Amino acid sequence: MLEVEAKFAVKDLESVRAGLDRKGGVRMGRRQQERDVYYNAPHRDFGGETDEALRVRYDDTGGVTVTYKGPKIRVGSAKAREEFNLAVADGETLEGILSRLGFRRAAMVLKVREFYEMGGDVTVTLDDIEGGLGTFAEIEILTDENKEDAADRIGGAIAKELGVGGPPIYTSYLEMLLSKQQ
Amino acid sequence: MLEVEAKFAVKDLESVRAGLDRKGGVRMGRRQQERDVYYNAPHRDFGGETDEALRVRYDDTGGVTVTYKGPKIRVGSAKAREEFNLAVADGETLEGILSRLGFRRAAMVLKVREFYEMGGDVTVTLDDIEGGLGTFAEIEILTDENKEDAADRIGGAIAKELGVGGPPIYTSYLEMLLSKQQ
Repeated sequence: MLEVEAKFAVKDLESVRAGLDRKGGVRMGRRQQERDVYYNAPHRDFGGETDEALRVRYDDTGGVTVTYKGPKIRVGSAKAREEFNLAVADGETLEGILSRLGFRRAAMVLKVREFYEMGGDVTVTLDDIEGGLGTFAEIEILTDENKEDAADRIGGAIAKELGVGGPPIYTSYLEMLLSKQQ
Repeated sequence: MLEVEAKFAVKDLESVRAGLDRKGGVRMGRRQQERDVYYNAPHRDFGGETDEALRVRYDDTGGVTVTYKGPKIRVGSAKAREEFNLAVADGETLEGILSRLGFRRAAMVLKVREFYEMGGDVTVTLDDIEGGLGTFAEIEILTDENKEDAADRIGGAIAKELGVGGPPIYTSYLEMLLSKQQ
């Protein structure tokens, strides 16, 4: 499964919420706090070299998910990357295993998120990232095929409908945070 | 948490069952088939060098558990090793992540197991290993302290009570299988 997505910096989440409301976007669940712990590998440098990501995500309901993302591929004005998501029973045990295998914590990102669905395969996530990084709207389509088509829809019609402007951002929150810390 | 355990080859599981019955052993659950997939790491050789183990276990009820075991430590006539067990939602996704991280399947062990509990902290597992490896009784105590004491109890009183004889075996099923295949 490929995740085709584009992220836009927005000054004001409220205006995007209004756009979603106008265009039939349905809010899924409540606002949610997430704590993302990113790991680097002992045998290759995810951030600096291979553009992979290994993340342990804690949501505020006790859920823990481990995610592997492959290198980003530019697809038109969006990006795509292979993604595996796995729910696990306990985050402390998972991080214990990662640590024993030689993986090291690289960074932590805290955010507040809201999820919206628009007509089937489109998900919009509104993010407020702690540490002064700002607010963002991420438009995402999960697809097994037609990734160029998905990229066109995201960068074109969908962004316009939501009143989201400016160039898409290809930098991950992790990269933003690491570059801000330097 | 340390797992202190000793394993004994037995000719006949039925006689150990009788010993367990005589000594108040309680069978936990039903006989269970397990498929264990062992992985090796890209950056160190678990089997040949570091004596670690990374295992994905599929039981016959759909449960999937990933386990990391640290190097074995001899404790008297038993062995101890650090152990992390983590239930995960999906084995295929887990193996996908391991594969992308560069871990490789090293071997698969199929077995039929029965579990017994004896007076609190002692677990006895009866194993029938496919591939002609034979039948075994494994006596285990999970402890945070007193590992010498636990080892003494396993090798002495408990083994005697169950009529389990012969020297304890320090070779894992994985090692037995790999050496048989060579």
